[in-house]
Amino acid sequence: MKTLGILGGGQLGRMLAMAAARLGIDCHIYCPDEGSPAARVSAEATVAAYEDEDALARFAGAVDAVTTEFENVPAATARFLAARVPVHPSAEALEIAQDRVAEKAFLNGIGIETAPWRGVDTLGDLTAALDEIGPRGILKTRRLGYDGKGQVRLEGPGDAAEAFAAMAGAPAVLEGFAAFEREISVIAARGTDGTVRCYEPGENRHSKGILRTTTVPAQIDAATRDAALAMAERIVSALDYVGVIGVEMFVMDGGALLVNEIAPRVHNTGHWTLEGCAVSQFEQHVRAVCGLPLGDPARHSDAVMENLIGSDIDAVPALLADPGAALHLYGKGDARPGRKMGHVTRLGVVVNSRK
Amino acid sequence: MKTLGILGGGQLGRMLAMAAARLGIDCHIYCPDEGSPAARVSAEATVAAYEDEDALARFAGAVDAVTTEFENVPAATARFLAARVPVHPSAEALEIAQDRVAEKAFLNGIGIETAPWRGVDTLGDLTAALDEIGPRGILKTRRLGYDGKGQVRLEGPGDAAEAFAAMAGAPAVLEGFAAFEREISVIAARGTDGTVRCYEPGENRHSKGILRTTTVPAQIDAATRDAALAMAERIVSALDYVGVIGVEMFVMDGGALLVNEIAPRVHNTGHWTLEGCAVSQFEQHVRAVCGLPLGDPARHSDAVMENLIGSDIDAVPALLADPGAALHLYGKGDARPGRKMGHVTRLGVVVNSRK
Repeated sequence: MKTLGILGGGQLGRMLAMAAARLGIDCHIYCPDEGSPAARVSAEATVAAYEDEDALARFAGAVDAVTTEFENVPAATARFLAARVPVHPSAEALEIAQDRVAEKAFLNGIGIETAPWRGVDTLGDLTAALDEIGPRGILKTRRLGYDGKGQVRLEGPGDAAEAFAAMAGAPAVLEGFAAFEREISVIAARGTDGTVRCYEPGENRHSKGILRTTTVPAQIDAATRDAALAMAERIVSALDYVGVIGVEMFVMDGGALLVNEIAPRVHNTGHWTLEGCAVSQFEQHVRAVCGLPLGDPARHSDAVMENLIGSDIDAVPALLADPGAALHLYGKGDARPGRKMGHVTRLGVVVNSRK
Repeated sequence: MKTLGILGGGQLGRMLAMAAARLGIDCHIYCPDEGSPAARVSAEATVAAYEDEDALARFAGAVDAVTTEFENVPAATARFLAARVPVHPSAEALEIAQDRVAEKAFLNGIGIETAPWRGVDTLGDLTAALDEIGPRGILKTRRLGYDGKGQVRLEGPGDAAEAFAAMAGAPAVLEGFAAFEREISVIAARGTDGTVRCYEPGENRHSKGILRTTTVPAQIDAATRDAALAMAERIVSALDYVGVIGVEMFVMDGGALLVNEIAPRVHNTGHWTLEGCAVSQFEQHVRAVCGLPLGDPARHSDAVMENLIGSDIDAVPALLADPGAALHLYGKGDARPGRKMGHVTRLGVVVNSRK
């Protein structure tokens, strides 16, 4: 494996490219934007649209394998490339994860619980759905939402008309309110040989729909942990998935688990693995999509990862001086509100002795 | 700080560029070789000779600061650039470290012990030196030696003529034999504000003049450790040094310390800091030369770093599957004997708890 192609140029691509470089693998970034964060740490870059078949064909000819750094890569792009070069994750896995209805139907179909949900194409669908699954919930566009975008919370049937209008005609899904105790996520990897390796579940805190912190280990009992890992393994195996996936779960009172969402890529809630494990989620993904053996996901330390969002970037001078803080900045110029600018991970302070 | 220029394109430059990228800083590699390991992970590259003043002037205009990844950058190059842009380490520090006689005279001049030594320009110098400091020693070229190259061991006066001939007329230095108990090194950093931060000393094993392993902590007592750290601090302060330096020391019976060599750059014996500390030697160097505050050098784990040299690269499939092994490959094509192809670090296995 000489050159890995990556579709997408954001911070996840940047950290994937650096992980590939650590293994001696060159990266070639394909992204519509000039000077993307990932391209600036990679050997090669193509700046072109995801629909540009000439550029895609040249890209396929220049790389040994292709992967993606965001879930909204057009499935047609993945299919076009897959006819020429190995592409992981597959167009099929991307299509399921890109549509909340397809995703939930897939999960329920393999026996995995989600919050109750109904597809919503009309205001009539929405009022009927509120009747069936309860008056509180979140209405989300079926496609293209992330970090809380394209979502409206409903506190009762009186919110229906306004929430439906906010979808602006896009197909939507109503998710019933889940009174969860905590949110966790499992970062799972599956290799080309079917081997599955999962990292320890992390516990996540969000604010305004955006991840703020992930703490490892999550405060869950051993049975819940084992159930979460088994669930992630069932998902990647049923998808015949290759690469790293993020599985977000709600832990309910009593320990039952509902899957909230799957993300077919490296995941913000797995950034702690850069410092906490010998093989990070980024290297694990590179290994998987390049057909290399998966690495050891054991963590050597407890960890807390905190996102730096928008003006959080103003804390960088203090973070540079903060003992034990491992700082990551993504090289983005403009610290717009809600934009992920970097993250910081802190490990436990007890010395980890070989004795 | 937007762009850091790096003179040199080898694996140290590659790891520096990745550390800079982690802080959101772009790198521009200046190196005579096309497609160098460092250029393949950097935003910009200039391929030109170190004596090409037009290329150097353009490079200086394109970066905000300049550093070096190997000690044999011509001092004239550093001086030319320093008239245009901040350059660390300085031409003066490079000149001292580039000449074993200047280096040892500098060390002795600030009260730091070395093995006995004599400058050797003629065979007569060598026989006189063997008379004065004992019959066993190592004859080394004053300049441009590394990894055991340009060195001949003498077991007695009868070896003098052959050893001298091996220098091929180059000015040399005889180093008296030091019957040391162990070799350690201190990776020290000094910031633009004069702050000094040292990593925990590592213990080094060599084979055929090339580093094989570094183990942290070194098996030394607290007084020796403190003396080693104080010695490194004295060196960087006396040099008015900015950046990371490697200081190799011999621990003699009874704990006395002799300095063997200083390397004005990130150092192979500090690679363990990538996994063992929140801020690695590479990030620490980037911080120093970019005028940022130095980071915390505390280590959170015990560590063993092992170099992969030449055909050691054949062990990569096994290392990819080795639990707890953090593998680094440098993207070099040709695994020539003696060539550093990568390294692997293993941390302690006890979980490092936040409690």
